[in-house]
Amino acid sequence: MRIGLIGFGRAGRAVAALLMQQDDVSLEWVVRRTSHGGHGSASSMLGVESSSPARMISADCVTAAALLDRHPVDAIIDFSSQSGIDYYGEAAADRGVAIVCAVSAFDECALARIERWSLTTRVLWSPNITIGINFMLLAAKTLQAIAPWADIEIMEEHFKAKPEVSGTAIRLATGLDQDPRDIKTVRAGGIIGTHEVLFGFPYQTVRLRHESLAREAFGDGALFAAQHIVNLPCGLYRMEDILLPYFSSDAVTPREPAGASGAI
Amino acid sequence: MRIGLIGFGRAGRAVAALLMQQDDVSLEWVVRRTSHGGHGSASSMLGVESSSPARMISADCVTAAALLDRHPVDAIIDFSSQSGIDYYGEAAADRGVAIVCAVSAFDECALARIERWSLTTRVLWSPNITIGINFMLLAAKTLQAIAPWADIEIMEEHFKAKPEVSGTAIRLATGLDQDPRDIKTVRAGGIIGTHEVLFGFPYQTVRLRHESLAREAFGDGALFAAQHIVNLPCGLYRMEDILLPYFSSDAVTPREPAGASGAI
Amino acid sequence: MRIGLIGFGRAGRAVAALLMQQDDVSLEWVVRRTSHGGHGSASSMLGVESSSPARMISADCVTAAALLDRHPVDAIIDFSSQSGIDYYGEAAADRGVAIVCAVSAFDECALARIERWSLTTRVLWSPNITIGINFMLLAAKTLQAIAPWADIEIMEEHFKAKPEVSGTAIRLATGLDQDPRDIKTVRAGGIIGTHEVLFGFPYQTVRLRHESLAREAFGDGALFAAQHIVNLPCGLYRMEDILLPYFSSDAVTPREPAGASGAI
Amino acid sequence: MRIGLIGFGRAGRAVAALLMQQDDVSLEWVVRRTSHGGHGSASSMLGVESSSPARMISADCVTAAALLDRHPVDAIIDFSSQSGIDYYGEAAADRGVAIVCAVSAFDECALARIERWSLTTRVLWSPNITIGINFMLLAAKTLQAIAPWADIEIMEEHFKAKPEVSGTAIRLATGLDQDPRDIKTVRAGGIIGTHEVLFGFPYQTVRLRHESLAREAFGDGALFAAQHIVNLPCGLYRMEDILLPYFSSDAVTPREPAGASGAI
Repeated sequence: MRIGLIGFGRAGRAVAALLMQQDDVSLEWVVRRTSHGGHGSASSMLGVESSSPARMISADCVTAAALLDRHPVDAIIDFSSQSGIDYYGEAAADRGVAIVCAVSAFDECALARIERWSLTTRVLWSPNITIGINFMLLAAKTLQAIAPWADIEIMEEHFKAKPEVSGTAIRLATGLDQDPRDIKTVRAGGIIGTHEVLFGFPYQTVRLRHESLAREAFGDGALFAAQHIVNLPCGLYRMEDILLPYFSSDAVTPREPAGASGAI
Repeated sequence: MRIGLIGFGRAGRAVAALLMQQDDVSLEWVVRRTSHGGHGSASSMLGVESSSPARMISADCVTAAALLDRHPVDAIIDFSSQSGIDYYGEAAADRGVAIVCAVSAFDECALARIERWSLTTRVLWSPNITIGINFMLLAAKTLQAIAPWADIEIMEEHFKAKPEVSGTAIRLATGLDQDPRDIKTVRAGGIIGTHEVLFGFPYQTVRLRHESLAREAFGDGALFAAQHIVNLPCGLYRMEDILLPYFSSDAVTPREPAGASGAI
Repeated sequence: MRIGLIGFGRAGRAVAALLMQQDDVSLEWVVRRTSHGGHGSASSMLGVESSSPARMISADCVTAAALLDRHPVDAIIDFSSQSGIDYYGEAAADRGVAIVCAVSAFDECALARIERWSLTTRVLWSPNITIGINFMLLAAKTLQAIAPWADIEIMEEHFKAKPEVSGTAIRLATGLDQDPRDIKTVRAGGIIGTHEVLFGFPYQTVRLRHESLAREAFGDGALFAAQHIVNLPCGLYRMEDILLPYFSSDAVTPREPAGASGAI
Repeated sequence: MRIGLIGFGRAGRAVAALLMQQDDVSLEWVVRRTSHGGHGSASSMLGVESSSPARMISADCVTAAALLDRHPVDAIIDFSSQSGIDYYGEAAADRGVAIVCAVSAFDECALARIERWSLTTRVLWSPNITIGINFMLLAAKTLQAIAPWADIEIMEEHFKAKPEVSGTAIRLATGLDQDPRDIKTVRAGGIIGTHEVLFGFPYQTVRLRHESLAREAFGDGALFAAQHIVNLPCGLYRMEDILLPYFSSDAVTPREPAGASGAI
């Protein structure tokens, strides 16, 4: 699979490093806004050995259309900022190149453009693109459906300097019909990011807990998303949609005998 | 819903108390092996106010067939011992009365009889009949399918005197293709029961953790199971089967625009 | 050691059961307000075998002075209500009988009386009398002194119906100079009581976490307190004071060689 | 305070970065075995702004004696390997320069030399030099002394590839008279390092839990140690010894009245 990366900040570098270590992935290029400090390939810049070309490209030197024609890719992974998508969006949509975007927010106009592009290609947009968090949301929704009487509490822990409530926690809350103002927000030390959904029953608790060990946590989610959406119809997706098919329902049919200790 | 309870030990009493507090449930009777200490109704014996008859019945005073004919029920909940099912199994199967059994183990002969009975009624057998643990098993299986490369560890904590490894932990292990000998077994103080399935990724962890707050944790699972299986075809079920339909899969279709903060 | 217990509600019964199972303790009597339902000894009422007399006494049948003269004790353990101490306080102070009181609050007048009584006997008063919580407070104060730059967060989890913020959490907060309004309060299911003090450093976290497994958690703390204060001078104590000597300071002297893997 | 650093591997770089950001510390130099790749100052090599000289020194270019005479320091912090101390040990001991060493192990001969050096300077050696872990060991010992009847379990979690049981966990175990073979060892994903000491009581649990958020966790412990031992008499110390004075014992004297909500 050929991938192009947009953005080379902290998250972008982490994702680039991860992609370059995958055998079945070729990181064709990395686009930054301008060419400052360092040239050539992301491989040498990050000190990561790789067979990927990983060409460092400046957005002010070549258009996305020209880049995609010269070095085509199957998917673009975007870890830049809100303006990044305007560089490649049109050209990607025209060529049916899949888009995996992890930018944190878009204004209404950008969203309108994204919708239009989703008519001719697949676009996945998730500010939090980790497999773990998106799994947790779906698993929590499932347990809520099983036991709607259970009490739910959402807790999130982050480094001291993070000013606002975790956007991920807010989405967990709204996804579970909880008031985001009830989110328990812990700010201490250098905690990278921890989220917990607690289900309280009369005589038991179930906790779903996600801990980020490093900011690189987004990398495998982005790759996972790219690998999945290239096979989907055109449209606009969230990470949730990619995971949902794994929560597969079998018709409830009788099982064969479980054996002496077969049942759980 | 009319329910008959088998067993009045610690777990049975807890379940009886819980059933008697449900508005939509009538606990018709509770069967004990012999009539020792206390008569009349479970309501007065446990000091729980209830509109349920909750007649205390001795197994040596009346056959299950006679009991079921005189005071029919929709489901029997069994928290007794391995021999309990021989009291009511045949009679329940003959009358199509659903059976929810939480006994910890059955030998081969008993299993053969249970299979036979499952031809004419619904039988659910789960030594661990809590909603939480069974949810965890299914959620863990789902995450394993999403990310088969993730490392899995299973931990269980129980009171100091519990000699053997948790049977629940063993089933979690085998359900996830893990070696039960790798289960981390903690024995300390009066811990009632805690189980955790840890998924380790390169840059994140996901923990599914279940804590029993009291031995009464089984009560709502037993009731949940009874309420669900009365609507199922005849056959032999595990708690897992009852929960699986909640892990519903939607076809992955494009979503409408998510809005400025719509994606997670 | 001879002990007299005041109060036979939920906590009192739990403490009585615990005391009666101690070899080196004789529970002489249990005082309730009036004699309702059940007589004789706490042993038979609770179904706990014991060599303790555990006489059930009604406060409206005998004065504390008469009771203490007839069946003297070394310490009184009080798990009743705010008015309980007025029954025995004067008589205990006159006779130098130690008092261990776990009542949650006292008004100013009661406190004045308690101070007066502490002139002639030892009085320990701690609404939360568990060894664990009091240890946690002292350990947290110690870590705060070692690393005053670390961020501190306090979290508490309780059953859904508990309306107010945990008094124990408030004391942890004030003991650590934290604003009680920053306490993270979780209300879910039937959680009995969990408290956590989190220390956040730039690259590590330290968590001190206490979980009550049952409301009987107070029992061993009350006994521990009683055993310790009988040896102390007259005065008014908190559970903290009883534990503080265990946080012992050695002069920092050079150590002998640690061996190949001796250092931690 | 003037500090010299030995070692510029992963841990050394992290410590150097931390030291260079302290206002009251001047990182005079960093010694590596040979001069490979990069010269000048650690500040420019790591991209950290600092007023510290942080001269990069090659051990094969200058002796420790000459270095200490030309650029004297108050303390040497050593994050190199077992052979590092032979570079500077003698020269530091001769000049009374304090040594803080975080190397993981020393053989018998090296230990004999270290003992000799400790006669003329202060040497602190702790393979795990984090404040958090060393605090935990002392706090755990304290709780064990308060409640010797409590059950203790030790758990440690690390990245999948770590082959051996955590040395830190082994020291926690031996420090608490626990069998190191009972340590619960979890290996999963990229977990940097988590240690937990669990105390199990009949009705409560106390957990002391330490989590490393990054390998830089050692930095503030090393600095803390350096700042403390420069004031101590000559001798051989462990991190434990530096923390112990904070676990201060007051004579147990009566407290003034606690007020209506004064007690905990």
